[in-house]
Amino acid sequence: MDLQNIPSRPIWQDEKDGKIRIIDQRRLPHRLIISELNTVDDVIYAISEMMVRGAPLIGVTGAYGVYLAFAGKEAIKDSREAGRQAERIKSARPTAVNLAWAVDRTLEKAGAAESDRRSSAACGEAAAIAELEAENSRRIGRYGCSLIESIAEKKSGKPVNILTHCNAGRLACIEEGTATAPVYAAHRKGVPVHVWVDETRPLNQGGRLTAWELGAAGVPHTVITDNAGGHLMQKGLVDIVIVGTDRTTYTGDVANKIGTYLKALAARDNNIPFYVALPSSTFDWQISDGVAQIPIEERDPDEVRYMPGFEKTGENLLMPENSPAANYAFDVTPARLVTGFITERGICRAEESAIRELFSKPET
Amino acid sequence: MDLQNIPSRPIWQDEKDGKIRIIDQRRLPHRLIISELNTVDDVIYAISEMMVRGAPLIGVTGAYGVYLAFAGKEAIKDSREAGRQAERIKSARPTAVNLAWAVDRTLEKAGAAESDRRSSAACGEAAAIAELEAENSRRIGRYGCSLIESIAEKKSGKPVNILTHCNAGRLACIEEGTATAPVYAAHRKGVPVHVWVDETRPLNQGGRLTAWELGAAGVPHTVITDNAGGHLMQKGLVDIVIVGTDRTTYTGDVANKIGTYLKALAARDNNIPFYVALPSSTFDWQISDGVAQIPIEERDPDEVRYMPGFEKTGENLLMPENSPAANYAFDVTPARLVTGFITERGICRAEESAIRELFSKPET
Repeated sequence: MDLQNIPSRPIWQDEKDGKIRIIDQRRLPHRLIISELNTVDDVIYAISEMMVRGAPLIGVTGAYGVYLAFAGKEAIKDSREAGRQAERIKSARPTAVNLAWAVDRTLEKAGAAESDRRSSAACGEAAAIAELEAENSRRIGRYGCSLIESIAEKKSGKPVNILTHCNAGRLACIEEGTATAPVYAAHRKGVPVHVWVDETRPLNQGGRLTAWELGAAGVPHTVITDNAGGHLMQKGLVDIVIVGTDRTTYTGDVANKIGTYLKALAARDNNIPFYVALPSSTFDWQISDGVAQIPIEERDPDEVRYMPGFEKTGENLLMPENSPAANYAFDVTPARLVTGFITERGICRAEESAIRELFSKPET
Repeated sequence: MDLQNIPSRPIWQDEKDGKIRIIDQRRLPHRLIISELNTVDDVIYAISEMMVRGAPLIGVTGAYGVYLAFAGKEAIKDSREAGRQAERIKSARPTAVNLAWAVDRTLEKAGAAESDRRSSAACGEAAAIAELEAENSRRIGRYGCSLIESIAEKKSGKPVNILTHCNAGRLACIEEGTATAPVYAAHRKGVPVHVWVDETRPLNQGGRLTAWELGAAGVPHTVITDNAGGHLMQKGLVDIVIVGTDRTTYTGDVANKIGTYLKALAARDNNIPFYVALPSSTFDWQISDGVAQIPIEERDPDEVRYMPGFEKTGENLLMPENSPAANYAFDVTPARLVTGFITERGICRAEESAIRELFSKPET
């Protein structure tokens, strides 16, 4: 695949025909498929089937879903129906908080507009959220880069080894990613970096997507199984862990792709800093106990049973035909295991007082 | 595949033609292939390519390798050459200590025999080691079953949820397995059990082999990704973890399939008992610091890059063509994370004094 021809964003409104288009991430890296989103149902399907995934990106996609509800032939007329469509979009995936945040925000903007301006108000808001998340990523990149640079200073020219789980990269966000933004920023500044890419079963967002986008950007990386991180940490081969998140409580508990918790435990056991990179849109300001309260999506067991990135056929079955599988999509890492958060406002400790202090100040 | 026609052991000497035959475990559960081992080179290939795997089984296979060195057309004549062939077999895989133990033991028996009796002495010793490991498994099953029964007593009829990693089952041993032996024993006694089977990337010994053999025995089980165990433990869905080991130091550090350490950390964080089942042949009585001293095999990165259980073709590539991968086969769980050992001598704490006490007494 020609890496030079990858669209620069995973979702965009086409300048020529005004259509909303996405990269269908399910067949990457083997096939680059571009899909159109023309209806609310298209949006719900794209989110629930994980054609698009990643907290910031599903937020933006949901926002465009609200736009599509107001646009087109079957455009909704009354606010009750708009609310109903918004709820349908929000329930496409339960764990990431960005989806509800972006949908509600877009619905509010549209509702405040004149009835013949709602479609364009929603479209404008979706685009604004996309730009906001792109800017958030750039800021996260700048703040996180300083962490990598300070590690690099002690390594006398040897690469800083960063471990990441899942894909919190360009494909999950709008531009630089969250967890990967500091890596891209450091790489551009000439800081030597190397990324251990957790494969991230069952859907292999690491092996398929993070490896693909790091490769396209020329960032040195090595794919490892999800099992390997603890051993690498024991052997001094990981300097810092940076992951994204789908929802983080104001108390600092972090929901992220299943398996993140295991890496946080290993980082703590080996005194390795464990950072979570996130825009403020991913904070949940309502709930305090992440392990008890964040809903954990259970997905189709066939995602575990068949090889990811390919058709589900007997040839791609990874286990006995009659063995059941379970597919929990996320886990929650308690705040006590998190060294800090890298946000668009700066870096803070993983505790309520520090989080509130960072976000209570006016943005600079 | 007809589960009733599976050979009852993964290695055996055929009664009719005297040949050593194995189940080639690489294509399971999709294809059951029986292979012959006729030469030392066959044995080395079978071990290094993981046609056979699992500490007790590669020990027995290595022992038959010594027999094959003395047998057949190119039978070795002098003891120096015998030693050389034994070293070749022992170096086929570096981490499991059973291989060296069984090869040395067989070589010694053969060496003590008259020169025309060496082949049959070696063959007899290999068979004796197989019987010993089968008996060890049965004993481990009996001792471990008591642990499961005592948990069952508190669960008022609900199944005891056991999590295991990799395959330390019948396919890894000679009969009952090590980690699975207590499960089979409890299941036969009517104790309700359910096994969470870690898929165990990259070679999916859990998803391919453990699920297959549990299914064949009618033991309820569910395959999960290696990422899922921590979440299950947080949610109270795991009562006990039982794994096997490839080498355990006399101080209690446990080398086992990569990813075991992460499960031990999660078990500790959630106060869940973490047991390691092993025969005495898997103890290393020489080294004291497992993390620093146990050699960790690095295998072909293509095992990570391609779908396990199938041919390595472009259609089975799991990641970008140009992304490198790393393949560490084992990690070491420090003794401080291990609740106890289930051995053929009984159960003991994971500390030197308890291990020495158990093995200093005459066997009962």
